[in-house]
Amino acid sequence: MAKACNVALIGQGFMGRTHSNAFLKVSKFFKGLPLDPVMHTSFGMKQENPKVFAKHWGWRNYSDDWKAVVRSRDIDYVDIVTPNFMHMPVAMEAIRAGKPVGTEKPLAGTLKDAKKMVDAAKKAKAKTFVWYNYRRCPAVSLAHQLVKDGKIGRIFHVRCIYLQDWGGPDTPLLWRFQKKLAGSGAHGDLNAHIIDMARFVTGDEITEISGAIAETFIKERTIPSVGAAGGIAGGSKGSRKKGKVDVDDAVLFLARFKKGAVASFECSRLAMGYQNQNGIEVHGEKGSLRFRFEDMNYLEYLDYTANPKTRGWTKIMCTSAAGGHPYVEAWWPDAHILGYEHTFVNQAADIMRVLAGKKPVVPIPDFADAYETQRVLEAALVAAAKRRVVKMSEVK
Amino acid sequence: MAKACNVALIGQGFMGRTHSNAFLKVSKFFKGLPLDPVMHTSFGMKQENPKVFAKHWGWRNYSDDWKAVVRSRDIDYVDIVTPNFMHMPVAMEAIRAGKPVGTEKPLAGTLKDAKKMVDAAKKAKAKTFVWYNYRRCPAVSLAHQLVKDGKIGRIFHVRCIYLQDWGGPDTPLLWRFQKKLAGSGAHGDLNAHIIDMARFVTGDEITEISGAIAETFIKERTIPSVGAAGGIAGGSKGSRKKGKVDVDDAVLFLARFKKGAVASFECSRLAMGYQNQNGIEVHGEKGSLRFRFEDMNYLEYLDYTANPKTRGWTKIMCTSAAGGHPYVEAWWPDAHILGYEHTFVNQAADIMRVLAGKKPVVPIPDFADAYETQRVLEAALVAAAKRRVVKMSEVK
Amino acid sequence: MAKACNVALIGQGFMGRTHSNAFLKVSKFFKGLPLDPVMHTSFGMKQENPKVFAKHWGWRNYSDDWKAVVRSRDIDYVDIVTPNFMHMPVAMEAIRAGKPVGTEKPLAGTLKDAKKMVDAAKKAKAKTFVWYNYRRCPAVSLAHQLVKDGKIGRIFHVRCIYLQDWGGPDTPLLWRFQKKLAGSGAHGDLNAHIIDMARFVTGDEITEISGAIAETFIKERTIPSVGAAGGIAGGSKGSRKKGKVDVDDAVLFLARFKKGAVASFECSRLAMGYQNQNGIEVHGEKGSLRFRFEDMNYLEYLDYTANPKTRGWTKIMCTSAAGGHPYVEAWWPDAHILGYEHTFVNQAADIMRVLAGKKPVVPIPDFADAYETQRVLEAALVAAAKRRVVKMSEVK
Amino acid sequence: MAKACNVALIGQGFMGRTHSNAFLKVSKFFKGLPLDPVMHTSFGMKQENPKVFAKHWGWRNYSDDWKAVVRSRDIDYVDIVTPNFMHMPVAMEAIRAGKPVGTEKPLAGTLKDAKKMVDAAKKAKAKTFVWYNYRRCPAVSLAHQLVKDGKIGRIFHVRCIYLQDWGGPDTPLLWRFQKKLAGSGAHGDLNAHIIDMARFVTGDEITEISGAIAETFIKERTIPSVGAAGGIAGGSKGSRKKGKVDVDDAVLFLARFKKGAVASFECSRLAMGYQNQNGIEVHGEKGSLRFRFEDMNYLEYLDYTANPKTRGWTKIMCTSAAGGHPYVEAWWPDAHILGYEHTFVNQAADIMRVLAGKKPVVPIPDFADAYETQRVLEAALVAAAKRRVVKMSEVK
Repeated sequence: MAKACNVALIGQGFMGRTHSNAFLKVSKFFKGLPLDPVMHTSFGMKQENPKVFAKHWGWRNYSDDWKAVVRSRDIDYVDIVTPNFMHMPVAMEAIRAGKPVGTEKPLAGTLKDAKKMVDAAKKAKAKTFVWYNYRRCPAVSLAHQLVKDGKIGRIFHVRCIYLQDWGGPDTPLLWRFQKKLAGSGAHGDLNAHIIDMARFVTGDEITEISGAIAETFIKERTIPSVGAAGGIAGGSKGSRKKGKVDVDDAVLFLARFKKGAVASFECSRLAMGYQNQNGIEVHGEKGSLRFRFEDMNYLEYLDYTANPKTRGWTKIMCTSAAGGHPYVEAWWPDAHILGYEHTFVNQAADIMRVLAGKKPVVPIPDFADAYETQRVLEAALVAAAKRRVVKMSEVK
Repeated sequence: MAKACNVALIGQGFMGRTHSNAFLKVSKFFKGLPLDPVMHTSFGMKQENPKVFAKHWGWRNYSDDWKAVVRSRDIDYVDIVTPNFMHMPVAMEAIRAGKPVGTEKPLAGTLKDAKKMVDAAKKAKAKTFVWYNYRRCPAVSLAHQLVKDGKIGRIFHVRCIYLQDWGGPDTPLLWRFQKKLAGSGAHGDLNAHIIDMARFVTGDEITEISGAIAETFIKERTIPSVGAAGGIAGGSKGSRKKGKVDVDDAVLFLARFKKGAVASFECSRLAMGYQNQNGIEVHGEKGSLRFRFEDMNYLEYLDYTANPKTRGWTKIMCTSAAGGHPYVEAWWPDAHILGYEHTFVNQAADIMRVLAGKKPVVPIPDFADAYETQRVLEAALVAAAKRRVVKMSEVK
Repeated sequence: MAKACNVALIGQGFMGRTHSNAFLKVSKFFKGLPLDPVMHTSFGMKQENPKVFAKHWGWRNYSDDWKAVVRSRDIDYVDIVTPNFMHMPVAMEAIRAGKPVGTEKPLAGTLKDAKKMVDAAKKAKAKTFVWYNYRRCPAVSLAHQLVKDGKIGRIFHVRCIYLQDWGGPDTPLLWRFQKKLAGSGAHGDLNAHIIDMARFVTGDEITEISGAIAETFIKERTIPSVGAAGGIAGGSKGSRKKGKVDVDDAVLFLARFKKGAVASFECSRLAMGYQNQNGIEVHGEKGSLRFRFEDMNYLEYLDYTANPKTRGWTKIMCTSAAGGHPYVEAWWPDAHILGYEHTFVNQAADIMRVLAGKKPVVPIPDFADAYETQRVLEAALVAAAKRRVVKMSEVK
Repeated sequence: MAKACNVALIGQGFMGRTHSNAFLKVSKFFKGLPLDPVMHTSFGMKQENPKVFAKHWGWRNYSDDWKAVVRSRDIDYVDIVTPNFMHMPVAMEAIRAGKPVGTEKPLAGTLKDAKKMVDAAKKAKAKTFVWYNYRRCPAVSLAHQLVKDGKIGRIFHVRCIYLQDWGGPDTPLLWRFQKKLAGSGAHGDLNAHIIDMARFVTGDEITEISGAIAETFIKERTIPSVGAAGGIAGGSKGSRKKGKVDVDDAVLFLARFKKGAVASFECSRLAMGYQNQNGIEVHGEKGSLRFRFEDMNYLEYLDYTANPKTRGWTKIMCTSAAGGHPYVEAWWPDAHILGYEHTFVNQAADIMRVLAGKKPVVPIPDFADAYETQRVLEAALVAAAKRRVVKMSEVK
């Protein structure tokens, strides 16, 4: 029998739900894990009714005192799904307590906080994890492997999007549109994912931001009535009263990678027609890759070295255990489609492996790695603010 | 608090896994179910090690005596996932014991068994269910609703496929190729699903089979070495010794529906390039529908009454709670992709609803309904056997 | 300079237009043809105003006496685009005159006529051609080559459709719905193409029809007002008066090929959402092919022998001269999309080659070859008429 | 009978071919044009053998003296398809001679030349045209109309790509990689098209460039052996000797539109897997549009105001005359696919209309309009050169 690993979940929002489901399922599907995750304790604030949450998801204990939970001798791994501003204090406490710790993305609410976490983790040689879950979409993991195996060769282009459409003018002034609550807008929420994905898939690092636009299309929104919530967007159409939006709706930026690739990144909450389109394209000397989350079971691959008579984009259904597709051995037969939630279960399995000193199927970002993503986010905002615009009126 | 519903799972093969996962998750995601399913007891034969299975999936009790389980006063609902030939005896026992009972598809190993079950259920006024899980793919449920709402109008064509490709000549003589173990080949395994789907989506019944082909392409296969197993296909390439295949690899048939539609059905285990392509197209006077399981989150809809300037196939991402897409309210935000396993969880939720006297989101086939599907399966085989072939040599 | 080849065009309907355009363009794009096609004479009936047609398209001469044209010493090749019932007499006259002759598909209005033409051509050793233009879609030609090159191996399944949607209940009683004018309905118009395509791509012959349905969904249609015309469907909604439809709207049939493949064919004028969807799928031991005319520049290919890690459907853009895609050297750079009309120009080029004793890029059906297609059409109708239906009421 | 319009074609390269084909076909397909285009005279330099070209395409006369042709009283319209640096002198001569004049894109080799042409045309009130042919792809024309009709509403995002892949490291140092011959690289060749397309579809103007990257991935290429040519890329792999590339391989830029949209543009010759992928996406408050040239017969439209139950991307096959799709009435029945060359024929038809004082189906860019596109090209290069880069090392 594998040794138990008592997990503490700190937070119980939307991500509390995805992580709870991950810990619920992981040992049912991943056989032979070196540690057996136990849903030991969940934390929620008093007003969140932590008992109900714990009972619902099967956490054995609950608490409204996160420090006590983190410090408890019973806990083997601390998993943070709080709002971003709380990542730092909880993680610091876990590190101080000598515990391995994972947080939802982004690493922290501010770059400064992130830096603190990185330094503390480094000093303590703590095992740390950040839940950039899309890495563990089998198609994305496969993309990473194909690049690593040299199938793409020298990369010329990296093209990333993360487009959603729930932020139209009728959507009220939810917490996601308020800087004090959300930290940032689409940029931190969406670009964070595709920056991580680009770094993960290419195995390369961004060296400069070559231009950026940050835009708030809808500058005022109606203030939602109390209690309105639900979905990503949540909320009803609310009252007539309006409040100011102080985060971005969309951020576009251009960048360069160390090994010479050029890249474009684009995120938006007002790209009508895309609901959760997290996508990457990589074009290299030997081949290209294309991934779109809305068709997450597929990876498209263009083998440019193939005979041009039958060359073209190959749509790989990434569900073949016999084909060695990452993670799918744990799941269902070929083409018995996987979904969003499986990316979290896959990460939970890999965290157990790393905690036991084994290798994950594909690398998990630790704090230091996720800090690089956060620096790129920051640099893009700097570029948007300080940009040297060329006005058309200057060109005659 | 909802009243508990103690579930007994009879069987622990591949479908034991999908149903266990369904009962594990259902109350975590479907809030406000009128009954609270409890994973009370699972049954497996001694040699299957029922204790290990029960413990793994969280069934509170286990047994190797199915009759005792079925008869137990503690059990509120009997769920059958045994091989097909056992559906009848277990279901009959459950009905005798006055218990609601559900079975995996098809209803029974033989039409005769199926008839017995239907008659017994009718007489006892038993609540019965058959797990044609693809009905509960949100896109398929939506297709059913759109037809019912009159969006398609008079139906002209129904075109169904269920194509897989694991049955190539290198695949050994697994149990699925042996009549005594599997009952039938692709026909019972795959056509069963699309006959049910066609009946469900159209709300109409087949009246005649107009022609059929049943074909076994690979007439002999190597006998697998002992212990070989896994996936749908399972098995290694096995020894050199060969044995006879006595089930079909592919069955095609043409049919007519009561309200005038013509239909084609085609299933195969040797349609290279399709791994689990369960698909239906319906073309009617007012519009058309198109579904393919390998892209299961989408339903394609053609509104033929729309302005021809902007008319075309609309690809609906069936994940919108706000849009009223069936079942998705229980799950994740828009375009946070669902998978194969969710169809089972959705069915578990609906079974709880029906057991409590509520309506399911879309109809669940009971024994009588599933018997109609089984009769169509049988009629197609009769047509294949007795067919009036026109030889090309007759036409000059 | 290549020797001139004086072409006579007999007929000036829709196909008169596609063939005129083909002869207009062929020597502009295909360089180095061994014969230089000259648009010498076109024929139309007096009431069709042959002068206007000839002048419009650049035919140097015109006539309303087809026999004179066919017999004329000036003519080197006779090209027939009349209604089907005239194919036989004109072709017979051309053969008698010792001229090479081509006709639009199908070979003839009746199987009896077709047989006469085949016999006469055989006896006279005449060079004959039938314009099954879809063979010369580069993607279809490539499919033929890949099968011939052994890339697909033993074929298990052939699945063909030709679906259109202009025949809804509002479409009036055009000539295409009247047997005396059109010969047959969708079957002769559409199935003819896919039977030819299946034979061409597989290089195999159908041996039996295993079942068939011929259906007329709309049994009466309004009689169009005089002068109504246009498009495939033509006509206005016409008067209130109704007339009987005596041709099929849809024909489905199942068949077997000599080398063991099973096949399904399905055509319709009421498959809403498909306007000209002429498609074929071939599944074989080593790979599969998929073609759909509405995306005619692509051929999809599944190499089943490839590494399963990156195996999948490859979408080949069939416009690469460097890749050796058939015919495209004559046209535009890669991915500078080709269309419907190019299939005709490609055939005109190949006819010039064959007339000069050279090989065509891919085989052109001669009368004997097209007669096989026509026999299959006939056999399917026989099967639909004499079918042994299994009524559901027989199965209990 | 329509009055003749004698066309003079100045130049006979690749674009000489597309324009000759356009004038060859236009009056065959577009009935009732107010002017009847006559292929009067073509010009080529002596070494280009203008006689052969003229004869091949059917130009009645030929010349190696362009000035004489342009000035000739016989000529009604001057059509320029020379290398870019010759656009200005020929156009100026035509304007001086009081002739309407059209040029291939871009307007001129330099912005200065372009300005001269605009000023001269304005002063002379000349009718001028620039052949941004992709505007006349029916799907693109339809996109323009839908925006104009208010179907998209306020536009948030414009996302444009023009990706090709013929410029890999093995491609030799063709004229397209040499500034003195080609003027610029991918930017002038490809971005020109998508800037025009973005302006045309949105009906809006770019006000600033917010960041840009211009990159030459392959800095040296082998010098091709004499005589090597063909395709876009042309050339054989050439000798071992290498020469310097002094144009861009790829240019990416971000921009803002007057009415508030943000935009990204990206072109490349090294985006392996795309051969001629000229694409635009527009996302607005009421809906979105998506076009990709490699699937040029489709326009995808998302009606965001539709019922969310059946909302999604609708794939419009833009070939319906009955549906009012632009230009298709001239061509073939529904879904009888159109290609690249038809965009040129459509433009030839519209030029005839404008010359006769009629309206084109959709606006044709005149010199002043095309000058705006050229200014954007220039501004993007300025932005790439003067950009304020944020180095990652600045962000800690």
